[in-house]
Amino acid sequence: MTATRVDGRTHDQLREVTIERGWSKQAEGSALISFGQTRVLCTASFTNGVPRWLSGKGSGWVTAEYSMLPRATNSRSDRESVKGKIGGRTHEISRLIGRSMRAIIDLKALGENTVVLDCDVLQADGGTRTAAITGAYVALADAVEWAREKKFIGQRSVPLVDSVAAVSVGIIDGEPMVDLAYTEDVRAETDMNVVATGRGLFVEVQGTAERAPFDRRELDSLLDLALSGTDRLAAVQREVLGLPADS
Amino acid sequence: MTATRVDGRTHDQLREVTIERGWSKQAEGSALISFGQTRVLCTASFTNGVPRWLSGKGSGWVTAEYSMLPRATNSRSDRESVKGKIGGRTHEISRLIGRSMRAIIDLKALGENTVVLDCDVLQADGGTRTAAITGAYVALADAVEWAREKKFIGQRSVPLVDSVAAVSVGIIDGEPMVDLAYTEDVRAETDMNVVATGRGLFVEVQGTAERAPFDRRELDSLLDLALSGTDRLAAVQREVLGLPADS
Amino acid sequence: MTATRVDGRTHDQLREVTIERGWSKQAEGSALISFGQTRVLCTASFTNGVPRWLSGKGSGWVTAEYSMLPRATNSRSDRESVKGKIGGRTHEISRLIGRSMRAIIDLKALGENTVVLDCDVLQADGGTRTAAITGAYVALADAVEWAREKKFIGQRSVPLVDSVAAVSVGIIDGEPMVDLAYTEDVRAETDMNVVATGRGLFVEVQGTAERAPFDRRELDSLLDLALSGTDRLAAVQREVLGLPADS
Amino acid sequence: MTATRVDGRTHDQLREVTIERGWSKQAEGSALISFGQTRVLCTASFTNGVPRWLSGKGSGWVTAEYSMLPRATNSRSDRESVKGKIGGRTHEISRLIGRSMRAIIDLKALGENTVVLDCDVLQADGGTRTAAITGAYVALADAVEWAREKKFIGQRSVPLVDSVAAVSVGIIDGEPMVDLAYTEDVRAETDMNVVATGRGLFVEVQGTAERAPFDRRELDSLLDLALSGTDRLAAVQREVLGLPADS
Amino acid sequence: MTATRVDGRTHDQLREVTIERGWSKQAEGSALISFGQTRVLCTASFTNGVPRWLSGKGSGWVTAEYSMLPRATNSRSDRESVKGKIGGRTHEISRLIGRSMRAIIDLKALGENTVVLDCDVLQADGGTRTAAITGAYVALADAVEWAREKKFIGQRSVPLVDSVAAVSVGIIDGEPMVDLAYTEDVRAETDMNVVATGRGLFVEVQGTAERAPFDRRELDSLLDLALSGTDRLAAVQREVLGLPADS
Amino acid sequence: MTATRVDGRTHDQLREVTIERGWSKQAEGSALISFGQTRVLCTASFTNGVPRWLSGKGSGWVTAEYSMLPRATNSRSDRESVKGKIGGRTHEISRLIGRSMRAIIDLKALGENTVVLDCDVLQADGGTRTAAITGAYVALADAVEWAREKKFIGQRSVPLVDSVAAVSVGIIDGEPMVDLAYTEDVRAETDMNVVATGRGLFVEVQGTAERAPFDRRELDSLLDLALSGTDRLAAVQREVLGLPADS
Repeated sequence: MTATRVDGRTHDQLREVTIERGWSKQAEGSALISFGQTRVLCTASFTNGVPRWLSGKGSGWVTAEYSMLPRATNSRSDRESVKGKIGGRTHEISRLIGRSMRAIIDLKALGENTVVLDCDVLQADGGTRTAAITGAYVALADAVEWAREKKFIGQRSVPLVDSVAAVSVGIIDGEPMVDLAYTEDVRAETDMNVVATGRGLFVEVQGTAERAPFDRRELDSLLDLALSGTDRLAAVQREVLGLPADS
Repeated sequence: MTATRVDGRTHDQLREVTIERGWSKQAEGSALISFGQTRVLCTASFTNGVPRWLSGKGSGWVTAEYSMLPRATNSRSDRESVKGKIGGRTHEISRLIGRSMRAIIDLKALGENTVVLDCDVLQADGGTRTAAITGAYVALADAVEWAREKKFIGQRSVPLVDSVAAVSVGIIDGEPMVDLAYTEDVRAETDMNVVATGRGLFVEVQGTAERAPFDRRELDSLLDLALSGTDRLAAVQREVLGLPADS
Repeated sequence: MTATRVDGRTHDQLREVTIERGWSKQAEGSALISFGQTRVLCTASFTNGVPRWLSGKGSGWVTAEYSMLPRATNSRSDRESVKGKIGGRTHEISRLIGRSMRAIIDLKALGENTVVLDCDVLQADGGTRTAAITGAYVALADAVEWAREKKFIGQRSVPLVDSVAAVSVGIIDGEPMVDLAYTEDVRAETDMNVVATGRGLFVEVQGTAERAPFDRRELDSLLDLALSGTDRLAAVQREVLGLPADS
Repeated sequence: MTATRVDGRTHDQLREVTIERGWSKQAEGSALISFGQTRVLCTASFTNGVPRWLSGKGSGWVTAEYSMLPRATNSRSDRESVKGKIGGRTHEISRLIGRSMRAIIDLKALGENTVVLDCDVLQADGGTRTAAITGAYVALADAVEWAREKKFIGQRSVPLVDSVAAVSVGIIDGEPMVDLAYTEDVRAETDMNVVATGRGLFVEVQGTAERAPFDRRELDSLLDLALSGTDRLAAVQREVLGLPADS
Repeated sequence: MTATRVDGRTHDQLREVTIERGWSKQAEGSALISFGQTRVLCTASFTNGVPRWLSGKGSGWVTAEYSMLPRATNSRSDRESVKGKIGGRTHEISRLIGRSMRAIIDLKALGENTVVLDCDVLQADGGTRTAAITGAYVALADAVEWAREKKFIGQRSVPLVDSVAAVSVGIIDGEPMVDLAYTEDVRAETDMNVVATGRGLFVEVQGTAERAPFDRRELDSLLDLALSGTDRLAAVQREVLGLPADS
Repeated sequence: MTATRVDGRTHDQLREVTIERGWSKQAEGSALISFGQTRVLCTASFTNGVPRWLSGKGSGWVTAEYSMLPRATNSRSDRESVKGKIGGRTHEISRLIGRSMRAIIDLKALGENTVVLDCDVLQADGGTRTAAITGAYVALADAVEWAREKKFIGQRSVPLVDSVAAVSVGIIDGEPMVDLAYTEDVRAETDMNVVATGRGLFVEVQGTAERAPFDRRELDSLLDLALSGTDRLAAVQREVLGLPADS
C-alpha cells in the first residue's frame, strides 16, 4: 500500500477539510463545508412544534433534505423541481442524513421542536453525502445552542449526546482508500459510506459492490480506514465549534 | 443466547421459506416467495434492446421495481400512484434490488437485452426487501433460461456468474438475531440488511443504528449471522431451481 | 349457436371460477378470485370514521381502487406510480367497482365507518373488472362480519341488502358470448360489462360498440346472457360465504 | 305518465337544442351547442400525421378531450391544471366522446390524419357529456369537409359513415324521462347515457343505478326513450349541417 | 405616423370592444369580452370566508386564474391539465390579473369574503391578458353588487375604489401602436402591457424588449398611447355597467 | 429627499456590490454576486447544439433558471422539488433572466450552441432577481470567452453586443429609492424592476403598484433612479471582467 493517488494523497489521507461556520445570516445554524473541491452549504432551521404524527408526545424531530445545484457537477443536470419529482438518489441521501443526525440527538431533550437540515451541494467532486453529514452536524450544534439561548430548550438539556461525521471508503485496484474524489469513485470496485460518532460507534454502514462482490477481509480493512477518517473529522468539528480536542 | 423468540425460533433461525416458481403464466420468469407471513410476487420481464444510454455497447441491462400493495400491511397505506409520487423507501429498495441482481450477472453475456424485475409485496411481515431479492433471483434465473431457449442469448453464454440472496439481521435487547419479523423489526436497536452471493461474498451491507449506535464487535456478530442466513437461502434457491446442492 | 370456443367452452359458459376467501392475513376481509387465468386479489379495509364531506351525517362510505401489476399482462406496462399519474382506464374501473358495492350496501346501516376495497390484478386474461367486482363483494361481506364481531356496527344492522357480481358479454363473429377471455375480447365487435345483484337486478350496464354499432335485438340477447352469468356467480359467492344456495 | 317536469317539459321532451356552427374562427370545425342552459364549445383540430403507435398503417385517428370551466357549475371547482391531475370523471367522459366519434368514422378513409375534438363546458346544467358528443359530431363533420377542400383526404373518400348523437335518460320517482337537467339528474334513481347513430344503432349504453338497482322492464323503457331522443338530435344535426332531413 | 395597419386601424385605435355582461347564469358576476377576434370569458365567484393565512384579520381576498382553451389559438396546444403542470406564462398572467383587481379594491370593505376571477380565453388573437383584465373588472363589479344585495357586504361599504382596464402597446417598424393583434404582436420590437385605473393611475407597467432594447423617448410615447387606450376602455366599462360616463 | 435609510444609505445609493468571478470550478462561467446580504450563485453552462425547435436554423439559444435555497430567507420555505411543482414567482423570474440575457446577445453569432444560466439564491435580502441578472451577465460573458477559446464559436464572432444589469426601485413613504433591501421592499407602495444595458437602453421595465396606483411623475422619477443604478452596476461588471471603464 505505498501507491500515491492522483492528487498525491496516501490511501488513508483525507482531502483538505474546511468548515466555514455561520456562513448563512438567516439560519439558526449553518456551515459551508469543503472536502477538497466538494462544497456543501448546510443550514439548520429551528422551529417550535413538531409534525402532527409526533404532536403531544414531548419529543422533538430532526429531518434533512439534500439537493444538488444543477451545475454542481461537470455537466449540467435537470433540476428536480423542473422534472416535478425527486430522484431515488436524492431521497436516499436525505434519509441517510436525517437518520445520522437523529442517532446522536436526544429527541426528548430537544422538546417539541423541529430542526430541518438543508444540505445543498454547491460543487461536487465525490463524497457529497459524507461532507453533508459532517457539515450538518456543525449546523445542528449551532442551532441547538441558538435555541438554548432563546430558551426554547432548557438550560440543562443536553440534546446532543455525541457528534457525528461521515466518510467514504472504497477499493480501487484492490487497494482500500479513504475519502474518494469523483474520479476515484467511478473506478472503485467497492464503495462504502460510513457514518460514525465522535466516540467511534457506527451509525450507518452502507457498502456496495459496484463491480465485484467483496469478501470479509476486504470489508474489515474498509471499516478500519473509515473509523480512522471519521475520527479525524470529529477532531475538525470540535475545533471549529471551539470544543476541547478530546471531548 | 438461549432465549427463544415470539414465534419460537432461535436467534439464528430463519422463518419458513417457500418459493413457488413460475407462479405467473405471463412473465418470462416468476416466483412467489414467502418468508413466514411475508409474501412477495417477483416477475422477470425479458425484452430485446436496452435503454438508450446503453445502446450499441454490446451490454445488457437489469433493473428492478419494488412496490407494496396498499393493504399488504396491518393498516392500509395510500397507493403511490394515487399520491402521484414514489416515496423514498420504495425508491431505495428498488435500487437495492437492481444493484443486487447486477452484481451477479455478466451484462456482456446477456447481450443487448433488458430484464426488469418487479417485486410486489402482497403481504408484509418484515423482511420484504430481503424476500424480494431472494425471489427476484429465481425469477431472473428462469428468464435467462427462457431467453436461452428462445436463442435471444447464446447457448454458451453464462450471464449468471453466481446466485444472490438477502437476509435481515438486527440486535434486539442486546442480542443479534436473523430474519426479523415485523414486531421484531420495530424493536431492534440496530437493523442490517445483507445481500450476499451463493459463494459467500458481500454484495450489499446496509446497517443502521435505529436506536443506539453500535460497536465493531456487534457489527461482526451481525455479519456472521447474516452470512449463515444467506447461505441457507442459497441452498433453498438451488433446490427450487433444480440445481445441485453444492453448485 | 353451436360453435365452441378456443378453450372448448360453449357461448354461455363461464370460465372456471375459484374464490380463495381470507387469502390475506392483514385485511378485515379478502378474496383471491380467479376467472380462468385472470387472478385478482381483493382486500377490504374497514376503518372507523368517514371522509370529511360525509362527516356527521350518520352514514358510512364504501370506495374502491383497482390496479394492475406491471407484468399481469403479456407484455410489461409502466407502473402508474412511476408515471406519476393514474390512467383513465384505471380511474374508470375503480369508480365502477365502488358504485357496484355501494349499490348493495345500506350506508346508514354501516354507520360512520369506511370500507376501502383494493382490487389488484395479479394476472390478467380478460374480465379483470368483472372478477374484481365479484371478488370485492366477498371481501366486503367478510369485512362487514368482522365489524359486527368487533361491535363497530350493531348486531341487528344489515348493511348488505343484496349481493353483487359482474360478467362480461360480447358479440364475436356475430355470436353473443359470455365471460370473454383476452383473445376473445380483442376480437369482439361489441363488448358489454353487466353488474347485477343476487336478485337479478341491474346495477350497471356498460355496452360499447368496439367495431360496429349494435341493434336492439343484439343488445337484448347480450343482456340475457349476462344475467344468466351473474346468476351463476352469485351462487358461487353464496357457496364460498357459506350461505344457503337460495338466499 | 302525464306529470310535467319543473320546466314544463313532458317526460319524452328534449330541452331546447341550439347549435352555433363555426363559432370558432381558429379551428377546422367547431360548434357551440346548447341543451337548455348547458353550453359546450366543441372544436375539431385536424392535423396531418398520426400518433406513433399508428404510424405507417394507412389509418387515421380521432380522439377527444372533455373539460369543464371552473365556474361552469353552481359552485366553483378547482381547475384540474392547478390540481396537477385529471379526475376520473373527466377521463371517463373524454374516452366516451372519443369512442363515440370513432364508431361512425372510417379511419382508413381518413388517411394518416388526426382529428382532436375538444369539448369545453362553458356552462353546465346536466347532460354535458351528451351535449358534447352531439356537438362534437358537427365539429368533426366540418373538419372533415375542410380537409377534403384542402385535399388532405381524397375527394371520393367518405370517412363519416353515419352521424352520432347522445342523450341522457333516467328514472325519477319511478318514471322514465329524457334529457335530464341538473336538478333532475341528482334526483334520478337510475341514470343512463345512450349514444346512437343517425341510423338508430347503439354505440354506447351506460346505465347506472344511482339509488336502486333496476329491472329489465325499466331498462327497456329507458332504451325506447333514448332512441327517440337521439333520433330527434340527429335531425337537428342534419339541419345545422344543411343535409337532407332523411339522409 | 400616418401608416394604417393591416386591419385598417390607425396607430392609436383600439380594435372593436364588446362586453357581454352576465353571460354566465351560474357565476355571481360574468362578462364575455371581445377585443376584435380575441374572446375571453370572465367569471367572478364570490364565497364567504378567506384563505387560512388571512383568516380572522377582517380582510377579504381577490385572486384570479387565467387559462386558454387548447384550440383558442391557430394550432392546438396541449392542455395544462393533461401535462400535469401549469406553464410559466399562465402563472404570470394569473398573477397579473389578481394584482390588478386587488389594486382597485378595498379588501377591508370586502369583509372576510373571497372573489375568484376565472378568465378563460375562448379565442385568441393577441391581447388576451389585457382583455381578461378589462373583462374581469366587469365581472368583479357585478359580483360585488350581488354580494351587497345578498347582504354579504354592508350596504354602505364601497369595496371598489376605482375601475381598472388594460391595453397592450408596442413598437412596430419604429412606430408605437396600441392594442396589438397577434400578427402585430409577433412583429413588435418592443411590447408593453399597461394596466391603469379609471382615474388614469398606473397599476402595472410591463415593458419588454422583444427584439431591440428601447430608449426613454420610446418608452414615453408608449406610455402616452397606453393611457389613452385604457381611458377609452374605462368608458366602455362604465357604459356596460350603466354608470355615468364621467364617474 | 434628505432622509437616510435604515442602513444609512441615501435614496439613490446601491448596497455594496461584490462579484466573485469564477467561483465554480465546474461551470464554463460563474459568478457569486452579492447585493448587500443578498447572495446569488450564477453559473453558465455551455453546450453544443440547440433545442429541437431551433435546430438547423444557424442560431443559438440562451435560457435561465432561477431558484432559491429553502433557507435563503428568514423562515424556511418548502423546496419546489418536494412540492413537485414550480411556483409562479420562480417561473416569472426565470423567464425574466432569460429574456434579459437574450436581449444583449446575438444568437446568430453564438452559432448552434446553448447557454443555460442557473441563478441559485444562497441568501436573500431583497433584490434577488436583479442580483441574479447582474451576476448572470458576468457568468455568460465568461462562458462565451471559454467557447471562443475552445473554438466552439468563431474568433471574430461577437455574440455579446452590449452588457446587461438590473436594479429595483420603489416608492417608500412617498419617496423613490433604489436597490431595496427586504425590509424596504415589504414597505414599498410601488415596486419596479428595471433591466437596462450598459449603453443605457431599457430591456425590461416591470412596475407594480403594491399598495397604491402611481402617477406618471412618480414613474418618471423611478426610471431616473433606476438608470443611474444600472449604470453603476455596468461599471462594476466591466471592472470585474477586466474591461475598460468606458467600453
